[in-house]
Amino acid sequence: MNRQYLLRRRPQGLVTRDDFEYREAPMPEPGPGEALVENLLLSFDPSQRIWISELPGYMPPVGLGEVMRSDGIGRVIASNDPKLPVGSLVQGLVGWQDYCVTKKGTPFGFFRMPDHLPFPPEVMLSALGMTGITAYFGMREIGAPKPGETVVVSAASGAVGSVAGQIAKIEGARVIGLAGSDDKCAWLTNELGFDVAINYRADDWKKQLRAACPKGIDVDFENAGGPIMHTVFSLLNLHARVALCGLISSYNSTGDRSGSMAELSAFIVKRIRLEGFLVLDYAKRFGEAAQQLGAWVAAGKLKHKETIVDGLEQAPDTLNRLFEGEKLGKLLLRVRS
Amino acid sequence: MNRQYLLRRRPQGLVTRDDFEYREAPMPEPGPGEALVENLLLSFDPSQRIWISELPGYMPPVGLGEVMRSDGIGRVIASNDPKLPVGSLVQGLVGWQDYCVTKKGTPFGFFRMPDHLPFPPEVMLSALGMTGITAYFGMREIGAPKPGETVVVSAASGAVGSVAGQIAKIEGARVIGLAGSDDKCAWLTNELGFDVAINYRADDWKKQLRAACPKGIDVDFENAGGPIMHTVFSLLNLHARVALCGLISSYNSTGDRSGSMAELSAFIVKRIRLEGFLVLDYAKRFGEAAQQLGAWVAAGKLKHKETIVDGLEQAPDTLNRLFEGEKLGKLLLRVRS
Repeated sequence: MNRQYLLRRRPQGLVTRDDFEYREAPMPEPGPGEALVENLLLSFDPSQRIWISELPGYMPPVGLGEVMRSDGIGRVIASNDPKLPVGSLVQGLVGWQDYCVTKKGTPFGFFRMPDHLPFPPEVMLSALGMTGITAYFGMREIGAPKPGETVVVSAASGAVGSVAGQIAKIEGARVIGLAGSDDKCAWLTNELGFDVAINYRADDWKKQLRAACPKGIDVDFENAGGPIMHTVFSLLNLHARVALCGLISSYNSTGDRSGSMAELSAFIVKRIRLEGFLVLDYAKRFGEAAQQLGAWVAAGKLKHKETIVDGLEQAPDTLNRLFEGEKLGKLLLRVRS
Repeated sequence: MNRQYLLRRRPQGLVTRDDFEYREAPMPEPGPGEALVENLLLSFDPSQRIWISELPGYMPPVGLGEVMRSDGIGRVIASNDPKLPVGSLVQGLVGWQDYCVTKKGTPFGFFRMPDHLPFPPEVMLSALGMTGITAYFGMREIGAPKPGETVVVSAASGAVGSVAGQIAKIEGARVIGLAGSDDKCAWLTNELGFDVAINYRADDWKKQLRAACPKGIDVDFENAGGPIMHTVFSLLNLHARVALCGLISSYNSTGDRSGSMAELSAFIVKRIRLEGFLVLDYAKRFGEAAQQLGAWVAAGKLKHKETIVDGLEQAPDTLNRLFEGEKLGKLLLRVRS
């Protein structure tokens, strides 16, 4: 039996259980050249909220009646693919289900992980996974802070932001993180070494941000959008860089989802470059990124944190935790141990 | 006697004569190391509207009671500066007046022009002037169209846009110009070689634009802002470039002057880079630009057009012609022949 969550309808705002259909399907059979995978860990990422909307994206939306798409790690338990022997670990779009088949032509496919993982699987989906790699290229290639510059990271306690801020620290920048609770802020400064962390739900957070950035902001690693982004934009310096990674605050919006930007004039005067980017464009350099991230983790320079939920049945509620509620670092769901 | 127009108050919307004070001042006297210049040609540029507002810019605003600032060309008629002998031509911020003194410390200073100008003075303020050079770097360094790509130029019949579009043609791109009248559009296609020109005041202009860009838009040379910009943004391709030169539609706005941008999501998905720029950043390469522009003009590859108003007393009304009414190419005012 294969427990699955299928997309039943396009959610309005935060997802509800009724947006998904629970189904107990028969165990899938791998076809020629395919492998059967038992899912171990599912990754939860804000982009999943986009995948179930009708917004155009870098992948087609999840179709109604299709298994909910998610990145994850699984173990091969039957195989007609000599490259994926039984017992090997794979990473790919395994979906919200107990089992999946490594079908040919799946977007971005499945890839076999090393037999001896350098870190636990949850770290391979976290600091060394797509979110860590996104932070790596976004901060190093787009933000590109110089020593002594001021970097602001929004959604700083998230999987991408927490790594992005630490990379900026490694590069010698002064780093201010924005997060949604005092606990998250304490984690950023006490554990991750952020210079300042500001709770954007505090009444005086804008004042705190101005005080924390007496020389303005040189790099905005932007993952929030909305009023947070606009406040950060108002403090950008000449030749500031905005690494536009995401606009999480708008992903659950039922009205106009897109951000608005009222500071275009300043982008001219200050010669600001704003550049959207996608980690997939750097696919050929994933190895370089993983090596560097791994070295930093091994040296204790890069901390990581995973919030792990147990039980596939928690999947729909878990998605909402990306947008509200408490969690630190990477959000994962454990299907089985 | 030196006729002068001083800024009396900060205009609301389009300027009025009452925004300026006309004064007949005594002839200025050049101090040590200074030269006295009789003004010949004044340049009129949309950025002047910013200079008399309170908006922060790359130069401080013109102060109340100060002579209105403008670029221009004059002839030295008395000199205590051996580098600027009597009879030489100078270019600089001569202002709305009959005479000026080349004071030390003037922003961007005055520079002596060649004794034998390669082109008439009006061309030196037009295709070879700041506006031509702005078009050169904005199109070549920021827009950077490749052969066969689709380029849209807003404010295409203006001093910058008309040159920018022609440079894109020289680079092998397909070029669509947006302008505010059928006459301007006819000039763009019949004289300057734009592939298509669209009157943005036509009811169906958006439909015309979509039809003119069946493969989308690769480069937006943006000088308009507002609804025109948003419509262009909606057609941007993957890896499109926006050379954000100006937001002319907002310069006379009495409300929120800044543009708004509701398409940030698309900037991520499409990896779009939007970059504000200022020609002053390329000061060290002005010579290169002027040589190249001159060669193109000489070869007949780069056409130019100047709309010349006669009489200093026309200065206040002339400024408004940048934003409304008919004019083609570079707008100049002739103080005297």
